[in-house]
Amino acid sequence: MYNLAEIPKSHPRRKSLISRKKIVDATKNGLLADSAMIAHGRGEAFDYLLGEKTSDIAKLSIKESAARLKSAKNPVISVNGNTAVLAGESLIRVAAVLRCPIEINIYYRTPERMEKLHEFLKLQQFKVSKEQKPENWFGDWENTVMSVKILGKEEDGKIIGLEGPRSICSSEGIEKADVILVPLEDGDRCEVLIALGKEVIVVDLNPLSRSAQMATVTVVDDVSRMAELLLKYIIQGTSSDKNWDNELALKEALKVISDNAAR
Amino acid sequence: MYNLAEIPKSHPRRKSLISRKKIVDATKNGLLADSAMIAHGRGEAFDYLLGEKTSDIAKLSIKESAARLKSAKNPVISVNGNTAVLAGESLIRVAAVLRCPIEINIYYRTPERMEKLHEFLKLQQFKVSKEQKPENWFGDWENTVMSVKILGKEEDGKIIGLEGPRSICSSEGIEKADVILVPLEDGDRCEVLIALGKEVIVVDLNPLSRSAQMATVTVVDDVSRMAELLLKYIIQGTSSDKNWDNELALKEALKVISDNAAR
Repeated sequence: MYNLAEIPKSHPRRKSLISRKKIVDATKNGLLADSAMIAHGRGEAFDYLLGEKTSDIAKLSIKESAARLKSAKNPVISVNGNTAVLAGESLIRVAAVLRCPIEINIYYRTPERMEKLHEFLKLQQFKVSKEQKPENWFGDWENTVMSVKILGKEEDGKIIGLEGPRSICSSEGIEKADVILVPLEDGDRCEVLIALGKEVIVVDLNPLSRSAQMATVTVVDDVSRMAELLLKYIIQGTSSDKNWDNELALKEALKVISDNAAR
Repeated sequence: MYNLAEIPKSHPRRKSLISRKKIVDATKNGLLADSAMIAHGRGEAFDYLLGEKTSDIAKLSIKESAARLKSAKNPVISVNGNTAVLAGESLIRVAAVLRCPIEINIYYRTPERMEKLHEFLKLQQFKVSKEQKPENWFGDWENTVMSVKILGKEEDGKIIGLEGPRSICSSEGIEKADVILVPLEDGDRCEVLIALGKEVIVVDLNPLSRSAQMATVTVVDDVSRMAELLLKYIIQGTSSDKNWDNELALKEALKVISDNAAR
């Protein structure tokens, strides 16, 4: 595999190669399940067809997500392994600004991976707390960041409608939440969360996936690009479109892919 | 990951899930490089957009490939890890019918993986030799299959124009060949083989990849579906189109993706 130092700064696909390297390394370190690299590869292909940039419709979806998260009573950011590895730092910044918890919630749940992901995010949290505060945000950054709760290990909540390990969640996190940001979510779980009356914001590079189709708001974009823009929009402040038409947004995203393939 | 017994026979994506399982297992068994699962995931996404079936244009490309391989003086089938795992048996059948060698040629070359892939293919060869001979093929199947040479470990040839481990090949295989079937090929190597005056038949689910763009004939299809059809067309006999327009074929393949995304 690539050594990061070997990828020239000017390489047109540098960001994509860095993300790939992060996923390969995290797999070796036991943070990710077997299927994580395959899922990442699928994402790479869709992102390639999206031109590896945030489309106009994705920007609109991110603005809508920002508004809904900001006006939520109990927002939560649910992260799986790939999300933590690709966008952990950015999502900690988002959680800090929203003053909401992050919940580690993984599909193939093992105590070892939960523990490793928890440690991984705690380290990211510490790093983020030492950074400059984001532009146009006012307050005590270090304290705000360190106050973000990293949930997931409690396993004291339940997603009603699911069976087995997939039903496990945190009572202070997903169970209580009214709006959930869940990048790279599984279709079944997305369906159940919607059925429970929660608003579900999904980030998925495949607009045809079941979770993309089920979500309240689907952002068809790379999770790391999305997370950076989301932070910006939350700080800026955006207003929600009461008539958000997710089906139309998905059609637009498919049109971007179709146009790029036909190019 | 999935247990194969858990995937219902009627599952619409059964073939795709079986291929995924093969790649995950082979990675665990040390047959594949780190990046193999990511590459497989990329393929899954493109295949999804192709409707997980062989398109009409892919069928034409496979017919053209069959004709060129059959009329070649020294054809060879070059396989990397993913190809061996996904289509090893089918390609051994093809090699038997063509009476040509198979060469294991991997991008991240290590003696351990070469050895494991060699053993893997020798076992596949033995299994194939015990099968019924293919329909409409006449001859001594067991002997013909067991006569297929599995090259790759000799490392006694060189691909002029490449440096380092990537230039290594077999003198009886790629070095001598006039027509090479190389599924899932790397772009650089494809370019060099073409520059050496060889005909290169590439199988790649991404019609935009560099090797897809460089090849003499590109088959935009899943390698296991492709290999089965190729065997059929070689036995049937097809004639080559002297004016094969690969650029047009790639455009057609992109149109299939674009139409499926716009659907």
